[in-house]
Amino acid sequence: MSTSVEEKHASDGLARETRNRIMARVERRLEEFLDAERRVWAVRNPDSTQLVDCVAGMVRSGGKRPRPAFCVTGYLAGDGDPDAPGIVDAAAALELLHTFALLHDDVMDDSDLRRNVPTAHVAHSVEHRAHGWRGESRRYGESVAILAGDLALTYAERLLAECTPRTRRVWGELCTELMMGQFLDILAAARFEPDPELSSWIALFKSGRYTVYRPLAMGAELAGAPELLAPFEEYGLAVGEAFQLRDDLLDAFASAETTGKPTRLDVRQHKMTLLMSIALREEPAIRDLVGDDLTGTDADRLHAALVRSGIRERVEGVIAEKIELAGVAAAKAPPAWSEELSRMAVEVAYRDA
Amino acid sequence: MSTSVEEKHASDGLARETRNRIMARVERRLEEFLDAERRVWAVRNPDSTQLVDCVAGMVRSGGKRPRPAFCVTGYLAGDGDPDAPGIVDAAAALELLHTFALLHDDVMDDSDLRRNVPTAHVAHSVEHRAHGWRGESRRYGESVAILAGDLALTYAERLLAECTPRTRRVWGELCTELMMGQFLDILAAARFEPDPELSSWIALFKSGRYTVYRPLAMGAELAGAPELLAPFEEYGLAVGEAFQLRDDLLDAFASAETTGKPTRLDVRQHKMTLLMSIALREEPAIRDLVGDDLTGTDADRLHAALVRSGIRERVEGVIAEKIELAGVAAAKAPPAWSEELSRMAVEVAYRDA
Repeated sequence: MSTSVEEKHASDGLARETRNRIMARVERRLEEFLDAERRVWAVRNPDSTQLVDCVAGMVRSGGKRPRPAFCVTGYLAGDGDPDAPGIVDAAAALELLHTFALLHDDVMDDSDLRRNVPTAHVAHSVEHRAHGWRGESRRYGESVAILAGDLALTYAERLLAECTPRTRRVWGELCTELMMGQFLDILAAARFEPDPELSSWIALFKSGRYTVYRPLAMGAELAGAPELLAPFEEYGLAVGEAFQLRDDLLDAFASAETTGKPTRLDVRQHKMTLLMSIALREEPAIRDLVGDDLTGTDADRLHAALVRSGIRERVEGVIAEKIELAGVAAAKAPPAWSEELSRMAVEVAYRDA
Repeated sequence: MSTSVEEKHASDGLARETRNRIMARVERRLEEFLDAERRVWAVRNPDSTQLVDCVAGMVRSGGKRPRPAFCVTGYLAGDGDPDAPGIVDAAAALELLHTFALLHDDVMDDSDLRRNVPTAHVAHSVEHRAHGWRGESRRYGESVAILAGDLALTYAERLLAECTPRTRRVWGELCTELMMGQFLDILAAARFEPDPELSSWIALFKSGRYTVYRPLAMGAELAGAPELLAPFEEYGLAVGEAFQLRDDLLDAFASAETTGKPTRLDVRQHKMTLLMSIALREEPAIRDLVGDDLTGTDADRLHAALVRSGIRERVEGVIAEKIELAGVAAAKAPPAWSEELSRMAVEVAYRDA
């Protein structure tokens, strides 16, 4: 018994080591791809490298690469060949897709800070103003960020040039869901009618599927292991909700120094987050303060009431439940990977930025 | 001899007929794809269909489909099987890519009219204002148009899920060049330092390669006929310049009713178009008026001087030369297609919108 536990730990450690080795290749692939692209365009037209740099700057600015990590894990859990190049390209493509999403999101949210540095559209608006260039600085900065996003999406696609049609179909679904989730998010914010059901739906598409399930599914398809899709979907649903709830907690209670971007945006924007829908259902003090009118409630008073309420602990409780559910789903994956998937769920749910 | 000419005409007619039959399938494919997508999303979330409709509205608003037509022609010239589904998907993908480009372009240019209807970002800004929704109407409208563009690009990629890596590589080049051409265009407009060389470069990437050469090349690769790439590139260079010069002429001298979009933008924006660089080189009256300072020249006086000058006829002469060069390149394509390619060059160069 003791030996088998030791063997299991050894195999878990080996699994993680294999994953990390592929993740290091993913980083190199991103670097090499972007460097090569920069060299090609520097010869064609020196100015054009600015757009490559805009993409590369976002890729290099950090991020924990959860989507590539889930993709590689899904692939190895499906017994994919760790030395094949396809998985490295697919995981790198997911990071470039996320780069695209961040560049466009920051324009749509008019966010000025990302990973503690000015966002692309803000930086290029400032450049436009500083040079006294023609036209509107805001439009120029936003146009550069939009085009940099478009280029990042193109780069992602180029990395997938060699992959199988089945994997590409998962990718197509993932991209479509991402655009739709984003659209419903801005529509809900504009309409400003708090709708808990729509909030769950958006969280499911933007976190559960985009960040967890579809990357795992891409990996599984690439490995030729479609039997893993069902447990991965179950796992992704739970981890995605935990991911989104952590996002809500960080926005509500963490400092901007910790997260590297502005915080308390949700309360200030009177957003019906998952956290807020739990607060309205379960916390009498919040329900009494807000009544039927979340959008009319004073943001500072609401934030103070959230701090005083038990919502923080309550949401931590829900996150813990989701992580347990994720563990149950993870147990349906091949043994060497079930523990690793559980561990990844914990990392995602208890991150600090 | 007379018989052989008749045979040749018969074979040309047949070639065009085959092409048109595939083009009709491309239209059906676009319709069916967008309808199916709308049905799927109507079930998931009724609001989400707005984004599909935004893409479909642009696809259905017209356009002469030159990129799909060049792609199909390149494919048939390369002896591709007219009944295979891949060519239909590739040509439809090119039209969706163009839909993406138009949606994003209209935001970047803040253009309010396209094909005689309000542009997407304007229509959605108006909707936002009419409903009294929250946030800035401009940002909302532009965000919807950006996301609709992103969705159109995703749809294009989905249509290419089954195609070969070689064809996908041409597609990746085409998309990269499109984003870069667009970036250099807005950079040049912002810097506002007339640079004829940069103007030619942008015209080459945005018209010659994006509209003509790369679509032909995708078709040739799909047919497995890479030997056609060199003559297609030569042809694309000439037709692309003719295409761009016609664009410049329409902007300078046609009415907005004819083109379906605002005209005289280039002169009002003091843009260094290909037409303007020829005018400065060849028309003494224009050179005297402008001197070293295109950007400081009064737009109305410049336009009047262009009308009085011989630039219109001169540019028509250059277009005619380019069409002749295109014919020489087209003659290197298989006989059944060389005449058709010459005819397409004429259609592109003498279009009225």
